[in-house]
Amino acid sequence: MTGKWAVGVDIGGTNVVVGLVGAEDGATAALRSRPTASMQSAEDAVDQIVEMAREVITEGLAAVGCRREDVLGVGIGSPGPLDLEGGIVLDAFNLGWKEFPLRDRVAVAVGLPVHLENDARAATWGEYWRGAGQGTRSLVGVTLGTGIGGGVILDGRLMHGASATAGEIGHMTIDFTGRRCKCGNYGCLEAYASGANIAARAREGVEAGAESILLDLAGGDPEGITAATVSEALLRGDAYANEVMQETAKILGAGIANVVNVLNPEMVVIVGGVTRAGEHLFVPLRAEVRRRAFRVAEQACRIVPGALPDTAGVIGAAGLFLESRRV
Amino acid sequence: MTGKWAVGVDIGGTNVVVGLVGAEDGATAALRSRPTASMQSAEDAVDQIVEMAREVITEGLAAVGCRREDVLGVGIGSPGPLDLEGGIVLDAFNLGWKEFPLRDRVAVAVGLPVHLENDARAATWGEYWRGAGQGTRSLVGVTLGTGIGGGVILDGRLMHGASATAGEIGHMTIDFTGRRCKCGNYGCLEAYASGANIAARAREGVEAGAESILLDLAGGDPEGITAATVSEALLRGDAYANEVMQETAKILGAGIANVVNVLNPEMVVIVGGVTRAGEHLFVPLRAEVRRRAFRVAEQACRIVPGALPDTAGVIGAAGLFLESRRV
Repeated sequence: MTGKWAVGVDIGGTNVVVGLVGAEDGATAALRSRPTASMQSAEDAVDQIVEMAREVITEGLAAVGCRREDVLGVGIGSPGPLDLEGGIVLDAFNLGWKEFPLRDRVAVAVGLPVHLENDARAATWGEYWRGAGQGTRSLVGVTLGTGIGGGVILDGRLMHGASATAGEIGHMTIDFTGRRCKCGNYGCLEAYASGANIAARAREGVEAGAESILLDLAGGDPEGITAATVSEALLRGDAYANEVMQETAKILGAGIANVVNVLNPEMVVIVGGVTRAGEHLFVPLRAEVRRRAFRVAEQACRIVPGALPDTAGVIGAAGLFLESRRV
Repeated sequence: MTGKWAVGVDIGGTNVVVGLVGAEDGATAALRSRPTASMQSAEDAVDQIVEMAREVITEGLAAVGCRREDVLGVGIGSPGPLDLEGGIVLDAFNLGWKEFPLRDRVAVAVGLPVHLENDARAATWGEYWRGAGQGTRSLVGVTLGTGIGGGVILDGRLMHGASATAGEIGHMTIDFTGRRCKCGNYGCLEAYASGANIAARAREGVEAGAESILLDLAGGDPEGITAATVSEALLRGDAYANEVMQETAKILGAGIANVVNVLNPEMVVIVGGVTRAGEHLFVPLRAEVRRRAFRVAEQACRIVPGALPDTAGVIGAAGLFLESRRV
């Protein structure tokens, strides 16, 4: 098989995933993943990313006959805020990186051009290009992880905004007198519906005496309850976990209704582990959007889980590298 | 003077304004205005609009030597929701128009091509083309009238969305357990900060015994208090009116911070009578956006009053007609 390729890198809160992605079809020919916690520093992360990039290129060579010269470059999706023009991670506080010139470090080490993008926008682009959003022209991605991120694609173009921060859906105020968010604002969507805050709300309930298998699943320690624990308990029929998810769906529904009213997209794609809750999340979520958004906007918009649960970020990062070459 | 012209029509809740607008510079060569209440029906509105259009064309002929054949067509900004492709006003409930083919009725009567657009988007385009937003590429307009509307311009293009309802900023949820809005949703921005709801909040306070000159200004009848009364009382130094405006600024700030976080525009232009409150509104409004939005997004965004208080809608409607010819 001939064709061109790009390496995609997705720097997540839990894992850093690197893949070799076909320029034509967006298929991943090889994938590597390492725990983010194993990276001691930004410099160490560069070394490990470059190692994984070499591995996927070598594996791609063996598996699909991809030649070194057919690998055009590397796309990276990183937590932000970023200086996109300078290729700099300004402040990835979960990782402890500050003012780090990630793009150029990786470019020099790997010997290929590199394109840097925000992680949530990369995942959104992955779903748009090769996932749930194929065939749409306007799509909003919502990434539900430790935090809540987002990406906005209108008329087939990824929006960056005046200072490259467009898409910060997690920090929409949905309750102006509400819960303090770690961004400094009050009543952000993220302060209620991110993975970390779903877990926090579940924990609060359990500690207040709610009957649930959550504590058992977490090995008896309330601190062990995560959003994944909530999804698991829910799928085992736990009523309290279901209540937490219903509440999450309502809050998320208010935020997504805002996006639907302001942008009127064809699709909203929810990306992240929370989507494992499936219809337990999506049925009440869609009902809430229906209740809150304009009928004509709501009816034009499908709200769906991402189709690339493990690879949207990698595929999207590679895809955005390829897009950047097209200009 | 030679050049080309278009007629702009702005159908507002209070007045219907018609102007002759230069295609080159967006200047209005002639203006007519009649109270919306004087129009008995949609058919009567068509007759009156056509009459005013003929008047401004005649006056333009006299004033600036505009020839009939240099008038390319008519742009209309109308309350919605609209069927833009069909040129139909689906349901302008304040006017009592339903499923009315406004575009074609005016086109036949005036003998010129007509372009129909949402009123808030027309005003946004007016400010972008010839008003406060000149020179920007991404701008969000917020129209504060009886209701709250909006328009989104990204990379120099007016966004319509999948079903032509993009920009419904007034119906963003900012308090998900909040006040019921007449759209059916709860806690919409409009339910607090529209002209009608600023007046309602002021009235509630006065009826509950707040000390204020508002009641005097309204001739002793609380029902006579409008948003304009609040602005007037404020400019005369009324402390309670100032309190109402500060509260409005805070709520509006939460909504605008959402727009700033999600779209990261260069500018937010506030259009409407409420802007007469000037710095009494804008100082606390900007402070609230600063408190709530991401620093890098907030710093990239100027929040300003519209520069075309009476003509943004007319100029924008004409401008969007001209844009529609360019495609």
